[in-house]
Amino acid sequence: MPQQAGASSALRLRRGSTVGVVAPIKDPSVSSGVDALVALVTPDMERVNATILSRTGSDVTMIPEVANHLISSGGKRLRPMLTLATAALSDYRGEGHIKLAAAVEFMHTATLLHDDVVDESDMRRGKLAARMLWGNEASVLVGDFLLGQAFKMMVEVGSLACLDVLSTAAAVIAEGEVMQLAAAKDTQTTQEAYLTVIASKTAALFGAACEVGPILASRSPAEQAACRAYGVNLGVAFQLIDDALDYGGASATLGKNVGDDFREGKITLPIVLAFERGDEEEREFWRRTLELGEIGEGDLDRAIAILRRHGALEDTIARARDYGAMAQEALASFPAGAWKRALFDVVDFCISRGH
Amino acid sequence: MPQQAGASSALRLRRGSTVGVVAPIKDPSVSSGVDALVALVTPDMERVNATILSRTGSDVTMIPEVANHLISSGGKRLRPMLTLATAALSDYRGEGHIKLAAAVEFMHTATLLHDDVVDESDMRRGKLAARMLWGNEASVLVGDFLLGQAFKMMVEVGSLACLDVLSTAAAVIAEGEVMQLAAAKDTQTTQEAYLTVIASKTAALFGAACEVGPILASRSPAEQAACRAYGVNLGVAFQLIDDALDYGGASATLGKNVGDDFREGKITLPIVLAFERGDEEEREFWRRTLELGEIGEGDLDRAIAILRRHGALEDTIARARDYGAMAQEALASFPAGAWKRALFDVVDFCISRGH
Repeated sequence: MPQQAGASSALRLRRGSTVGVVAPIKDPSVSSGVDALVALVTPDMERVNATILSRTGSDVTMIPEVANHLISSGGKRLRPMLTLATAALSDYRGEGHIKLAAAVEFMHTATLLHDDVVDESDMRRGKLAARMLWGNEASVLVGDFLLGQAFKMMVEVGSLACLDVLSTAAAVIAEGEVMQLAAAKDTQTTQEAYLTVIASKTAALFGAACEVGPILASRSPAEQAACRAYGVNLGVAFQLIDDALDYGGASATLGKNVGDDFREGKITLPIVLAFERGDEEEREFWRRTLELGEIGEGDLDRAIAILRRHGALEDTIARARDYGAMAQEALASFPAGAWKRALFDVVDFCISRGH
Repeated sequence: MPQQAGASSALRLRRGSTVGVVAPIKDPSVSSGVDALVALVTPDMERVNATILSRTGSDVTMIPEVANHLISSGGKRLRPMLTLATAALSDYRGEGHIKLAAAVEFMHTATLLHDDVVDESDMRRGKLAARMLWGNEASVLVGDFLLGQAFKMMVEVGSLACLDVLSTAAAVIAEGEVMQLAAAKDTQTTQEAYLTVIASKTAALFGAACEVGPILASRSPAEQAACRAYGVNLGVAFQLIDDALDYGGASATLGKNVGDDFREGKITLPIVLAFERGDEEEREFWRRTLELGEIGEGDLDRAIAILRRHGALEDTIARARDYGAMAQEALASFPAGAWKRALFDVVDFCISRGH
């Protein structure tokens, strides 16, 4: 199956790669990379946004309130953009990609709503989490509603192959989240175990979002697998950069989410690397803060200092760069053009966030 | 659309019906009614159970643990039995009904897991709720996993019409749950509003469970709508009896769940009826206990006494009997036989639980 081939190649560890090399800080204008994609998808994206708006409508007013609180809160809508872009890359001429892109965004939004309940998060995208405003109940149930609407839209598109890809992704995402829950606060987590978690909880939806376009366009199985591999590898890269940014990234710039993972005791790749490389005193520090949750003043600074001493943030970003390169390589068989260029640039943009 | 016709007929209020008439207590041997169905579906049900078991399997051990805690905890599996029975009633000869029955049970189980989080329930089916053993997080995420698996199974069966019915049900169920949440503790809830909630949160899945069999068997739209109407009306009857049983039913026998709805401030039909019929002192009692949650010793007894004084439990059961009769009438066009008999008897069994 092409999906599994894509997923397993994403999980191939690159031990001999660019570990320890700090990348040069890129020109901030590299962000025009995502601007190119945004510009290309704008006409389709307006239809996706209209679909999202109409499909969160309900006489039950709490549903559009909760859904739109999150949907309109400034997410980049990267996943639906990828669905639109890979459909265009595949020369798809139909209408199905609009509803599938909206379905992908609904699946993502449902995951965020449920994640906030699971993580007991107070904030999401710089705003109060929905659960803080409407309660855990509403977050659980509106998430379920969005999942149901996502499946309804997929059914309306009528491609069983796309339904297969997206329903499999839904089960795999939940499996990855449970896996993460079971491994929570466990400083013994291995690199392999962690990469399996993010391949499931994050990369599976990126992969599915990129695979449905070429399926709709009836492209060859190899081309479907190539788009999927692009998405899966980009998804892993994206998550690794997020993990590094949670400790300030390579430049240790303190952004708005810095320390969230630390306070929640989340074991991410920077922690796994630092724990592997640390001495007994440092390991004791990680056990106290992450396993026991005993976090005092100065502990986040100390955590960042340890991570930097071991090059754990730089190496996480280097690992992300490897996955990014695999994402770009996956598109080799597609002819050059504006869409391929934009999909390349998105990868560079995601990586550059780490600096 | 036949679905909507079925749902709206289920919601037709029967104001002039048997209100105030206390039904004779039936012979307990009426429970052989459900035994007939159980016996008829046994060969298929064994395959459904094997499917359920294999589809909760995961390397992530928490998933089968949580899922099986609930799935093996003695639920009647009424919904999948209905899928099997309506498929047989429709002379279906294929294999798709097995996976769809398992999918229906997964959707139901996912709803229970999420409901427990929403209601903050401690117990479910006489056992500790999963959330008490594994936490809210696991209940949310394993519910999501089961929903994903349910959709995967539907996709494998490959009927877009069945996918349409079941994905619509998933969205409607969540919508009904949110509706109930928004109306929670609101003693102003009308009969119509309450019946809309239970048509969504309970009857939609019963209706879908009964509709997919005739769809798989390529029966006429009228026959599909008839089976759906059977399920929807049975679902409403089933929920109304549950509501009455939560206050001891017509005979005020104190079963194991008595008082749960009262303690959670749930507004069910018995309450709506008693509030409509009560004087100001009684309304004040309902506001204090259900809206404000100020419940002291003796309040449950007083609630039951008020409900009985106004015939609210008997009338709820009478209303259930009306829906049960509509469920049976819906099957009129199907020829007599063991399956039709068994589906009739299930209705009588559900109603008789109220006494």
